[in-house]
Amino acid sequence: MMDIPNPLVLKRPLFVPIKTLMGPGPSNCSQRVLSALSNPMIGHLHPECLQIMSEIKEGIKYVFQTSNDATMCISGSGHSGLESAMCNLIEENDVILVASIGLWGHRAADIAKRYGGDVRLVEATFGHSLTINEIEIAFKYHQPKIFFTVQGDSSTGLLQSNLKEIGELCHKYNCLFIVDTIASLGGTEFFMDEWFVDVAFTGSQKTLGAPPGLTPISLSMRAIECIRARKTKVKVYYFDILLIGQYWSCFSMSAIYHHTISVTLLYGLREALAQVCAEGLKAFIHRHQHCSYRLQQGLKDLGLEMFVKNPKERLPTITTIKVPFGIDWRKVIEYAMRKYVAHTQTHTHMYICEINIVNFFNRYCMEISGGLGSTVGKVFRIGLMGENATLERADLILNILHEAIESSKLDNNEKSKI
Amino acid sequence: MMDIPNPLVLKRPLFVPIKTLMGPGPSNCSQRVLSALSNPMIGHLHPECLQIMSEIKEGIKYVFQTSNDATMCISGSGHSGLESAMCNLIEENDVILVASIGLWGHRAADIAKRYGGDVRLVEATFGHSLTINEIEIAFKYHQPKIFFTVQGDSSTGLLQSNLKEIGELCHKYNCLFIVDTIASLGGTEFFMDEWFVDVAFTGSQKTLGAPPGLTPISLSMRAIECIRARKTKVKVYYFDILLIGQYWSCFSMSAIYHHTISVTLLYGLREALAQVCAEGLKAFIHRHQHCSYRLQQGLKDLGLEMFVKNPKERLPTITTIKVPFGIDWRKVIEYAMRKYVAHTQTHTHMYICEINIVNFFNRYCMEISGGLGSTVGKVFRIGLMGENATLERADLILNILHEAIESSKLDNNEKSKI
Repeated sequence: MMDIPNPLVLKRPLFVPIKTLMGPGPSNCSQRVLSALSNPMIGHLHPECLQIMSEIKEGIKYVFQTSNDATMCISGSGHSGLESAMCNLIEENDVILVASIGLWGHRAADIAKRYGGDVRLVEATFGHSLTINEIEIAFKYHQPKIFFTVQGDSSTGLLQSNLKEIGELCHKYNCLFIVDTIASLGGTEFFMDEWFVDVAFTGSQKTLGAPPGLTPISLSMRAIECIRARKTKVKVYYFDILLIGQYWSCFSMSAIYHHTISVTLLYGLREALAQVCAEGLKAFIHRHQHCSYRLQQGLKDLGLEMFVKNPKERLPTITTIKVPFGIDWRKVIEYAMRKYVAHTQTHTHMYICEINIVNFFNRYCMEISGGLGSTVGKVFRIGLMGENATLERADLILNILHEAIESSKLDNNEKSKI
Repeated sequence: MMDIPNPLVLKRPLFVPIKTLMGPGPSNCSQRVLSALSNPMIGHLHPECLQIMSEIKEGIKYVFQTSNDATMCISGSGHSGLESAMCNLIEENDVILVASIGLWGHRAADIAKRYGGDVRLVEATFGHSLTINEIEIAFKYHQPKIFFTVQGDSSTGLLQSNLKEIGELCHKYNCLFIVDTIASLGGTEFFMDEWFVDVAFTGSQKTLGAPPGLTPISLSMRAIECIRARKTKVKVYYFDILLIGQYWSCFSMSAIYHHTISVTLLYGLREALAQVCAEGLKAFIHRHQHCSYRLQQGLKDLGLEMFVKNPKERLPTITTIKVPFGIDWRKVIEYAMRKYVAHTQTHTHMYICEINIVNFFNRYCMEISGGLGSTVGKVFRIGLMGENATLERADLILNILHEAIESSKLDNNEKSKI
């Protein structure tokens, strides 16, 4: 018996507004990437699909600056890169030292614990990254098998800029080195091989400008040997690097079926990487840094204070700005996104109509983000990534942010009159 | 130092051929679905994104015929649905009884073992599904906490048609009931609630006609209570149903961030589900069954033998046909896909040019699949799913299959002359 009725909500057309995504990601995709997504389906083992995967692999090697054969994508969001790194390397009671400069260290620690890791945390002072001295002390004390750090933490806007030194330390202590470059890659230099990084992964939807859903990952020969020498099977079949690597033809010539990859997402990522290659990695990174510098100067001119005091510890891709005293951060974000339209959470249909009008009159529809984890209520987060890393966009967001803060002050004044 | 050079392969344009995908999936997407994929990015917590997720949830409830609140998608391929079911329900040493009517039972057993499950297998005779008697004997002997079965196995083309009875058995034995409907949903009836199914998941890229990458899943209150009562944390953060359910607003009103969902894939799945709803589930299933019947009749007329003897045990979505004696199955598949073009594996570039010409002259580019697992070399697999479940396509594939087999016979004759 068909008891569950045909849902009326699916009789309506799909509605997707056009927004400028200047939060911590996803970022806007280029028209080239969006158009590629509409290409027809092909099979996950067809030669044309394997060819695209091989091209993506070359692109990932380039952006990671690595010659690792074990370079591939995990079929999942950025989190799945972190899961894959942890579940392949960790066996019960392995000591893993996790650096924390924001939310992502804690997330990594949670995940490592689930796989039976003996997790030790080395935490930075709030608003700072870790010095090599702090890390070496932790190394001496904990003697870890694995060390994990982010290169950049999207929750705090911090850059862990001493990866080269950390890599040498890991080498010295014979420790496997995992780096999460989700929020940083493309906005700052990263040399996987030169810095002795054993596992690196990144997000597709940040500077690279592909849609989310595929996570580039690369593993050194040392990491692969460690996985091959495991006493127990990797817990998660879906994240089993040796099986995924076989599918990506990392270890032999012919691809062996592991799962049905999303060819749609392959099309998008392939085109996104092709655009980075067309620009050249050096120029690509320089553009992100240049725009970030312009944004930081502009914020200073507006009298706003950076959350990260030391300019060298600032992530170029995601900038964190202290919420000025007395300002309601929610109102500022709301203003940038939809100006005066506020009564939207409960009346979806009405809201959809309004958003359409907003788009029609070409209003802002601009995403500025609030804090995450320990920075909730304390910071605004502005992303200048991929298509949005232009001087024009940097100026635009400065204008809107300024206007939004001023408008929020006016609201306060009006309230105080009453 | 930039040691790894900019890859030349990414200077070429993206190449995606147009194919008719009549293997076991992915299936072709409709133009409505393909067009939706090009919509711009929005944030994974934006109200418009949550609205689309809520619409998808309604669509999934309808196709599963369930009123479960815990209805959502896993951000991964069909395998990730299986992983999620296993890793959320299984704790160390839990007895899980796995039914096997092909490859997928063995895959489920492998995954269950990785999570520490005490796996017991009940295997059907080759080419047959399991009787309720066989299953009840196994229940009595093993007293499982969890029972797993596929509704249809894509490797054998078998349908496990007694799910209603199995559901009653599970209810009687107080056992959790997991059903993999990846290959079957939309091609045959499925009543999640009425049949006491506790966890069901399906593929997006089969009858539903969305791209791969999101896996619809639904859990009964009993399954959720079992997960809530776990003594240990779910091993995989990425597949933690209680966290994913929070993101999909299954347990409360407001969505909490868990991972960055692929909005691109949401667009595609939303439109695919909308098309099923527009047709109506009953008509949708009937169309698949009608086409399968036509295909089976046609195969009989061609003198070809079905792998599954009993018509009631045949999966309507994926039909398995015995490879006739003396026929090289590889040649048949090759013929349907590219006719005389054979020297392609090693000369990718040449191959790409040829495929372009093939498309230009409107040749077949038709996918017929070989066997998988225990059926490799024994069967052809033909899928009539979603857009391809039409009488016209059924007739087309019959013609091509016949032509391909005859051509393969000619090849044999020529060889025997030499």
